[in-house]
Amino acid sequence: MNYGMIVYILGTILKAEAILMSLPALVAFLCGEGDLMPLLTAILIASGAGLLFTLKKPKNTVIYAREGFVVTALSWVVMSLVGALPFVFAGAIPGYIDAVFETVSGFTTTGASILTDVEGMSRGLLFWRSFTHWVGGMGVLVFLLAIVPLSGGRSVHIMRAESPGPVVGKLVPKVRDTAMILYGIYITMTVVLIGLLLLGGMPLYDSAVHAFGTAGTGGFGIWGDSIAHYDSAYIDVVLSIGMVLFGVNFNIYYLLLMGKLRSILRSEELRWYLGIIAGATLLIAWNTLPQWGGMLRSLRYAFFQVSSIITTTGFATADFNLWPELSRMLLMVLMLVGACAGSTGGGMKVSRLIIMLKSAKREISRMLHPRSVYTLQFEGKPLEDQTIHNVFTYFFILVFLIIASVLLVSLDNMDFDSTFSAVMACINNIGPGLGVVGPMGGYATLSPLSKLVLILDMLLGRLEIFPMLMLFAPSVWIGKRRKG
Amino acid sequence: MNYGMIVYILGTILKAEAILMSLPALVAFLCGEGDLMPLLTAILIASGAGLLFTLKKPKNTVIYAREGFVVTALSWVVMSLVGALPFVFAGAIPGYIDAVFETVSGFTTTGASILTDVEGMSRGLLFWRSFTHWVGGMGVLVFLLAIVPLSGGRSVHIMRAESPGPVVGKLVPKVRDTAMILYGIYITMTVVLIGLLLLGGMPLYDSAVHAFGTAGTGGFGIWGDSIAHYDSAYIDVVLSIGMVLFGVNFNIYYLLLMGKLRSILRSEELRWYLGIIAGATLLIAWNTLPQWGGMLRSLRYAFFQVSSIITTTGFATADFNLWPELSRMLLMVLMLVGACAGSTGGGMKVSRLIIMLKSAKREISRMLHPRSVYTLQFEGKPLEDQTIHNVFTYFFILVFLIIASVLLVSLDNMDFDSTFSAVMACINNIGPGLGVVGPMGGYATLSPLSKLVLILDMLLGRLEIFPMLMLFAPSVWIGKRRKG
Repeated sequence: MNYGMIVYILGTILKAEAILMSLPALVAFLCGEGDLMPLLTAILIASGAGLLFTLKKPKNTVIYAREGFVVTALSWVVMSLVGALPFVFAGAIPGYIDAVFETVSGFTTTGASILTDVEGMSRGLLFWRSFTHWVGGMGVLVFLLAIVPLSGGRSVHIMRAESPGPVVGKLVPKVRDTAMILYGIYITMTVVLIGLLLLGGMPLYDSAVHAFGTAGTGGFGIWGDSIAHYDSAYIDVVLSIGMVLFGVNFNIYYLLLMGKLRSILRSEELRWYLGIIAGATLLIAWNTLPQWGGMLRSLRYAFFQVSSIITTTGFATADFNLWPELSRMLLMVLMLVGACAGSTGGGMKVSRLIIMLKSAKREISRMLHPRSVYTLQFEGKPLEDQTIHNVFTYFFILVFLIIASVLLVSLDNMDFDSTFSAVMACINNIGPGLGVVGPMGGYATLSPLSKLVLILDMLLGRLEIFPMLMLFAPSVWIGKRRKG
Repeated sequence: MNYGMIVYILGTILKAEAILMSLPALVAFLCGEGDLMPLLTAILIASGAGLLFTLKKPKNTVIYAREGFVVTALSWVVMSLVGALPFVFAGAIPGYIDAVFETVSGFTTTGASILTDVEGMSRGLLFWRSFTHWVGGMGVLVFLLAIVPLSGGRSVHIMRAESPGPVVGKLVPKVRDTAMILYGIYITMTVVLIGLLLLGGMPLYDSAVHAFGTAGTGGFGIWGDSIAHYDSAYIDVVLSIGMVLFGVNFNIYYLLLMGKLRSILRSEELRWYLGIIAGATLLIAWNTLPQWGGMLRSLRYAFFQVSSIITTTGFATADFNLWPELSRMLLMVLMLVGACAGSTGGGMKVSRLIIMLKSAKREISRMLHPRSVYTLQFEGKPLEDQTIHNVFTYFFILVFLIIASVLLVSLDNMDFDSTFSAVMACINNIGPGLGVVGPMGGYATLSPLSKLVLILDMLLGRLEIFPMLMLFAPSVWIGKRRKG
């Protein structure tokens, strides 16, 4: 294990975090609500530690898959531990575990909150809280790759470890260029969204914060009743469409820039993703119709909630916890499905679902006709057996982790709704669940053990399980160094 | 598709069912509670239809995998449709869907009941109800193979389709001999269990009925409060151990007969199975300790419930629906795990869990060291990639079916506990769930749609998904006949 390089990258991450925190510090300065000092102190700590870690540039800068996983997982942990400091220093979240929960929830774009009075928090801190969504959405390490090129061309290991989806491809040959393009698209779309929200009469501060929550598919807001606060059909629709767009694979936007419209129309994942959204919206609109008394109104609320959940954002315009059981269950299923690979959304990803469904279909056909063989295709390319196997393993481990987490959280003795949906909402990076942790409730009352379990779940979900899991694999830390 | 042969086998099944029903008819005759005529009428219908279907012995008796699946699935459906008749004729269960639910629940060894007053049912019918467990436990077609050898040696397709577990092996070269040995062991163990229950002071009728429920890991009883009725530590312990033993792979008993003790001790599945039972028992005993006020008492109830659920029997000595959330969740997890492959128990099977865990471990190792390759071993033999792939596909389809069923059952608007556990309890062939369908509740109040969904789930669970699924695959019914 190349420890020198791991420490060096962690130091770079801390320096980057210090720079990122200066934006909320600026907001704190402008708003003058007394949260400037806590932010500056945290910036001082982050940059100090960052400089210390990067004092010695290691001679051997080569990293392998193993280091890629470890450094990605550790970066997210370190970033969260430091990112939680402003909340503690300001006294806004007194308990450190709670503050870490909130920060992990931010960076992993989950949006699960332990705050009981979000409206009581100062504007600088709220800005930082939502900004973590934006930073975490595209991935901090990908950002790092865009500005600090690592030597040896091995940075693809980091990109693979941090980027969501079963098959991570580079758009262009160089990782750095790919990262630059992705961030370019990301920033442009965020700015456009801020503009659209401003047009709807939302103040600049609110627009920025909610655009961060949407772009990162995070879901932190600034009001106790989330987006319902604005009670505006325009804002609901803009955010609904915004969430859907940020849940799309960013490759699609690159193809759009290249003018390859035909390739976009042929994307299986995109068609499934939009199909699932349309189907679920219609079902829920029908199921909740009596509640709204009009199809248009019903569609508006259903579309918003479906977009919010499948993209794993977690904004709410209604207390879906009170909806009929079918709608509640449908939302729970969407939590698991998640958004597209290569988007800022979480969950299992639509592409994994498609691959498993196709493979299951082939398996049935193979049982009927044992001697027939055919190769699976996905997005016009043949699927390797190894990819299929990896997807199934991913799914099994995900279910296994959900079950293990449910058992641990069930020690809190909440009802099944709350226990199960809390785990689902955290490991799939949604935010609100059902019951106690519903959109109008929160995670404040959970025990410290449950909070720690859910912190781990959020990180597991965001990094797609394996990098976090590697931290606990003995063979990562001991044993001979093997090339690979 | 060899339709002639399918009809012929279905006819044979119906004749076999008529013979099997004569045992409860005898009991009805001896008890004289007025349920003899309904049983005799059903026997007449079954044997009549059976004779009609077998009038013409088809010239071509060769069957392929496709026919094996279809005939297995159809046999279970037909058997249940006819087996339900005595309940309807006697007026004991007036609705035909309800009667089919009860009979499918019997044959699939689920034990989920729509009866609200089981103690009010006549003894002949109760005997038939429990006897279906015993018949379904080992598999009717396996029984058929033991007495009516099919030509061409292709009956292994039927055995594969009906027998539980990821790898179905024959104990001895001939399918017929294997079936004979299995039934020999099954009958012997059932008789021994009846003897042990008699020793505990249980009446003969009760002993026979409960032995059927235990041997088939079914769970139908004759009292409203299940085994708690006897309130006897001896009976609890005998049944607990009995259930555990019937959840063991029957190959183990064959090895025992052959004196191959070392092979038994080396069985990975057996060790995991017993380990999980021990672990879950201790956890639940600790978790429910305050309730029982003594470790011994707590262990007794915990062991009984763990055995009952992991073997997918479903007997109860306590209302575990009222236990703390951790215990309830643990039981729900055990529902999914299920018993050993090649036993009478349902669920996913311990061997599948082991294979998936091992494969997941290898996958992580492969990600760390992309160039390393090692072959997985299970029960001392190398695992083929195809087997692993099949297990993962099975797991994915199982979860998929659970989710689809939960969505349909959620239209009944019950709480999440009840909806989710009803599906889990039926598709894994357990019987009682939590909430409304808890051990002291039942399935009577569910809508006809939910009952139909759960009937399908029970059949899917018992036949391990694929044969039932094939019935809905268009390619089974249309298209060219391919050899395979």
